[in-house]
Amino acid sequence: MYETESEFACRMADAAGREILKYFRQPLNIEDKADTSPVTQGDKNSERVMREMLKERFPNHGIVGEEYGKENENAEFVWVLDPIDGTKSFIAGLPLFGILIALLHNGKPVVGVIDQPYAKERWVGVSGKPTTLNGKEIHTRPCNRLSQAVLFSTADKLMFVKPEEKRAFNALCSKTKIERFSTDCYGYGLLSAGFGDIICETDLKLYDYAALVPVVTGAGGIMTDWDGNDLFESSNPDGKALAVGDRRLLKEAVEVLNI
Amino acid sequence: MYETESEFACRMADAAGREILKYFRQPLNIEDKADTSPVTQGDKNSERVMREMLKERFPNHGIVGEEYGKENENAEFVWVLDPIDGTKSFIAGLPLFGILIALLHNGKPVVGVIDQPYAKERWVGVSGKPTTLNGKEIHTRPCNRLSQAVLFSTADKLMFVKPEEKRAFNALCSKTKIERFSTDCYGYGLLSAGFGDIICETDLKLYDYAALVPVVTGAGGIMTDWDGNDLFESSNPDGKALAVGDRRLLKEAVEVLNI
Repeated sequence: MYETESEFACRMADAAGREILKYFRQPLNIEDKADTSPVTQGDKNSERVMREMLKERFPNHGIVGEEYGKENENAEFVWVLDPIDGTKSFIAGLPLFGILIALLHNGKPVVGVIDQPYAKERWVGVSGKPTTLNGKEIHTRPCNRLSQAVLFSTADKLMFVKPEEKRAFNALCSKTKIERFSTDCYGYGLLSAGFGDIICETDLKLYDYAALVPVVTGAGGIMTDWDGNDLFESSNPDGKALAVGDRRLLKEAVEVLNI
Repeated sequence: MYETESEFACRMADAAGREILKYFRQPLNIEDKADTSPVTQGDKNSERVMREMLKERFPNHGIVGEEYGKENENAEFVWVLDPIDGTKSFIAGLPLFGILIALLHNGKPVVGVIDQPYAKERWVGVSGKPTTLNGKEIHTRPCNRLSQAVLFSTADKLMFVKPEEKRAFNALCSKTKIERFSTDCYGYGLLSAGFGDIICETDLKLYDYAALVPVVTGAGGIMTDWDGNDLFESSNPDGKALAVGDRRLLKEAVEVLNI
């Protein structure tokens, strides 16, 4: 299932990566978008290249992209593109950004690719199959207590702006063993490969999380909102996301976040 | 000056990197030290290898290392070793840790190496010479206002524990344009290469900062305590460190930290 599509997603990631690397660690011309997140030329070029490939190969599919918006978004198959997730890391020279590509089938994510072109690391998740990192099957690790957990989160000053969200996130961090921040999509890749245990974020948009769900799920983890509900079945207007590698960790995490 | 020594430091980094990579992204047996920071076998093996090389090549030099303590520390030449700076990133699978090697001559750092063996990135700073990244000369970039600055900091829950330090750090972050955390030594490398502008940290030990000073200085930046004083001339008992790529930024940063 979805083999043609996941292979095509990898070809898009190849093309997008080539565009992006032209701009990584180069002097940048940073524009400020309305939401003040930085957008680079690489971001735009990369999404344009992917859209052109999709229109040629799957002309009836819909597309939702961070940079160029929505086209035919009610189609049976819809591709969701984030050409550079982690633009702040990209700008700061940190190799923790990634290209995110997802395919939704009837509104549910069935293919997800996280690609880190500088480190040459690619995670591929396909519905019903084990997740791979550079072609090798990976699995999350056991961890059933927050006190033993490695937590990842982007967690910059723009993420936990609402006081109640900040409080809940700080409560979670006070319980975990190790925290690493500014991780964006890369943290989900590491969690899926068994190097982290929990991720807590908010304000995520569809293009931020659609590709992550098949990767995390296919490695044995689960991704939900802060109440433990499926991200594609609950309304979740704030874009709250919680990922755990070991599903037994979910209950304790949801409790701490909702005290 | 110091050519033999800086070349030898690179040979030690090669050897240490080989040891460390055996343990990166492998299941780890983590011990808890008294300060609760995780120590891996790779950490210990790596320092042991460097010490053996030093004793053979420079038997009269002193050594200060994170794992195995001090030997002959009042010698004219003293090597300062941190086999894995950023052990938390190492454990979490993040390629932001580094091997730090410094040479002190009469108590002042004259050689500094930051080596990231997974990404194969090596910064070398030598007193009186331009800093290099993988052999290529690098320079910090101009940035004379905090509002335009990219800030790096390790900034985990163990770093800014004292309320007054936390307050000062938060005040600084509220003024900068972009912040990226969990960066350890890697942030100093990026700042030296012109991708970041300011770093603020505390609780640093000699082995955490000795190698950073020649790298940052040789690229055109400066590293001081939070009052703008030279790290090797002030007492700085709390290990407060401030690095700026553009020296014009120092005054504003010191002011904000001391309001």
